[in-house]
This record gives sequence, structure tokens and C-alpha cells, in this order.
Amino acid sequence: MNISARNQLKGKVKELKKGPVSTEVVIDVNGSEVVSSITTASAESLNLSVGDDVVAIVKASNVMVGKE
Amino acid sequence: MNISARNQLKGKVKELKKGPVSTEVVIDVNGSEVVSSITTASAESLNLSVGDDVVAIVKASNVMVGKE
Amino acid sequence: MNISARNQLKGKVKELKKGPVSTEVVIDVNGSEVVSSITTASAESLNLSVGDDVVAIVKASNVMVGKE
Amino acid sequence: MNISARNQLKGKVKELKKGPVSTEVVIDVNGSEVVSSITTASAESLNLSVGDDVVAIVKASNVMVGKE
Amino acid sequence: MNISARNQLKGKVKELKKGPVSTEVVIDVNGSEVVSSITTASAESLNLSVGDDVVAIVKASNVMVGKE
Amino acid sequence: MNISARNQLKGKVKELKKGPVSTEVVIDVNGSEVVSSITTASAESLNLSVGDDVVAIVKASNVMVGKE
Repeated sequence: MNISARNQLKGKVKELKKGPVSTEVVIDVNGSEVVSSITTASAESLNLSVGDDVVAIVKASNVMVGKE
Repeated sequence: MNISARNQLKGKVKELKKGPVSTEVVIDVNGSEVVSSITTASAESLNLSVGDDVVAIVKASNVMVGKE
Repeated sequence: MNISARNQLKGKVKELKKGPVSTEVVIDVNGSEVVSSITTASAESLNLSVGDDVVAIVKASNVMVGKE
Repeated sequence: MNISARNQLKGKVKELKKGPVSTEVVIDVNGSEVVSSITTASAESLNLSVGDDVVAIVKASNVMVGKE
Repeated sequence: MNISARNQLKGKVKELKKGPVSTEVVIDVNGSEVVSSITTASAESLNLSVGDDVVAIVKASNVMVGKE
Repeated sequence: MNISARNQLKGKVKELKKGPVSTEVVIDVNGSEVVSSITTASAESLNLSVGDDVVAIVKASNVMVGKE
């Protein structure tokens, strides 16, 4: 399936911090960290484990721009 | 100002596509493209131009995870 | 690719309204309308046309609950 | 109150999973599941219970499109 | 209808900037400006006009925190 | 750093409710409450405490409009 989300960054799961409802997923993308917060049910349904090859997906409307 | 958003990726503005209300900003982050959609008023208020050093900012709750 | 987004509703593109930067996509999901706003570049990259089989994807953290 | 959110799907609360800060709400919409993640304080303020008639509300800009 | 969104700020429409697909709504909330970007179809469906009493609605998961 | 987010409301942290993964931050903005849900890791990285001067930041595309 192709997705309309403009940002799809390939990486590896580096860390998983599971709470009762939310789970934080730290993804290593070319040496940078991208952090995702998903439901724990999603994390389990994807069977996410440290080391997995994953894609961090972000819709363009959710990206802000900062400038010094 | 420090921001709670967990994802702050440094890059350079590569392309700006301005519409009457929305503007698309393509940011080069280490050779990868990150695309942001902001209001044209924001783009003008930041005085964004191609070549500017910027930061793509994304809240962790807006990052999904895909897995093959 | 499996995606962490908890909501993935299958439907058909019913209407496309293209602007210079943003495009509105109306999707028929079992007789109900689901409306998506994506970048026009995304719509073109997916080559979206009326009648296409598509999936409306929404992260759980973007669903609010209303109650009478 | 009428809301600008384009997507307002009527359903019934099927399941509630409460954590200390976040609560997952599973809503049955015509036999399909729609999942929402809200703050536990919101769930309590709405006094949400299984079986309640509710509306799942999603802004169009938070709907992505997937295509095979 | 009560909504789970934790942030509901009452104000008046101060300015409307309509594009073909997206519309920017500037809302005066106690002398501060709150800016919303919605689809033009939504703005028309709500029949929004300058001077209208409205509520700016934001889900808690979409509020970031900045600190000097 | 200037940020493209159109809504930046100054206030003070009034309450912090920390969970294992998510933290709710209640901010007093001119006597009104604005509620943010961020990761606990973010709250700790900002070293957020009750009484801190902070800014509630919201992208325009995440603001809905309600009208009676």
C-alpha cells in the first residue's frame, strides 16, 4: 500500500518504552533519533521489537518549521 | 525557547510552493526530503526562502510506525 | 507494510477537489463520507482518481469523542 | 454546537482501556471499529461508559489516504 | 454535544482568508489571536462570517509546550 | 528560534500529571486553562515544574472551529 503521507523515514527500532495505554518508540534514522508515541495495542499488533526495520511516517500537515 | 516536540531535524529549505492559504516547504535533511505544509501567512512571517537553515519539528504523537 | 495507525477504513474515492497546494479527497466508506485533506503533490504522486479503491487512515490520537 | 471537523461518525463505545494519563476508547461504527486515544481526564469528564452513544470526530487534515 | 477535546476557547471570528481548498480563520479570544486552518467546505458549511461567536477547539495531544 | 506554529499562548504551568509514558500539563493562560499531553520524557527533558513560565504551541491545522 502506498500512503499519502509525504514523510516516510526508514530506520530501526532502538528503544521501546511501554506504558499501559501508550508506548514510546525510539527509531534510529541514519544516526538521528525519531520518536513516536503510539498506543500499546498498536505496538503489540505490529509485534514491534528492538532492532526491527521500520518506517517513521508523518503527514506533511504535522510538520512545523523553525528558523533561528 | 526549548520545545517539548521530540523530533527536531535540522535541514535547509530546498523548495517552497506557495498557494493562497497553504504553503508546502520541502526541507533537505541530510540528503533526505522532509515535507511540511504550513499556512502561507506563517511562511511569510518566518520570511522563508530557499536555502534557509531551518528545523523540521514534529510532535511524537504525530509519528506513526510502519513495518514490512 | 503494516501501519501502527489503528483506524484504516476501506472505501472508494468519490470526489477530488484540487487546489494549488491542498487537495480534498472525499471517500465513500460503506455509504458514509470520510473527508481527507492532503497535499496536491501527494494526490498526484498516488495518482488518485475518482473510483479508486483506497484506505482512509487515521491515528488514534487524532480521533476525538463527542457525546450528547 | 456544530464543528468544522468534516468527519463525525456515530457509534457506540465498545471498550474502554484506562491508563493513568491516556485512555483508549474503542467505538463500534456500523460494525467497524474506530479507536480513539484521549486523556483519562477527558474520558472521566465525559463520563464515558461502554454502550454510550458517541461520535468519533476527526479533522480532515488528520486523514491520510492509502492506495494499493 | 460535549467533546473530549480539552481545549475549547470562546472567541469571535476576526478574519477569514478563503482559498480554493483551505481557509484560514483568525479568532479573537480575549484579545489574543488564535488561528485555525480548515477546509473551505467546512467554513462554508458552518456559514462562518466575521463577527460570529465561535469556539476554537484543540485536542490536548496537539498542544506542545515551549520553555525559555 | 521562531516557529511556524501560528498559535503561541504564554502561560504558567498549573498542574502536572505524570504517567509512565504520557504526561498531562495544565497551563494557565490569562485565567483560562490550556491542556497539553506530551511524553513524560519530554516533560523531564524540559524539566517542567508547576509555576514555570511556558508557551502553549499549536499548529493552525490542529485548531477546529465550533459554532452554536
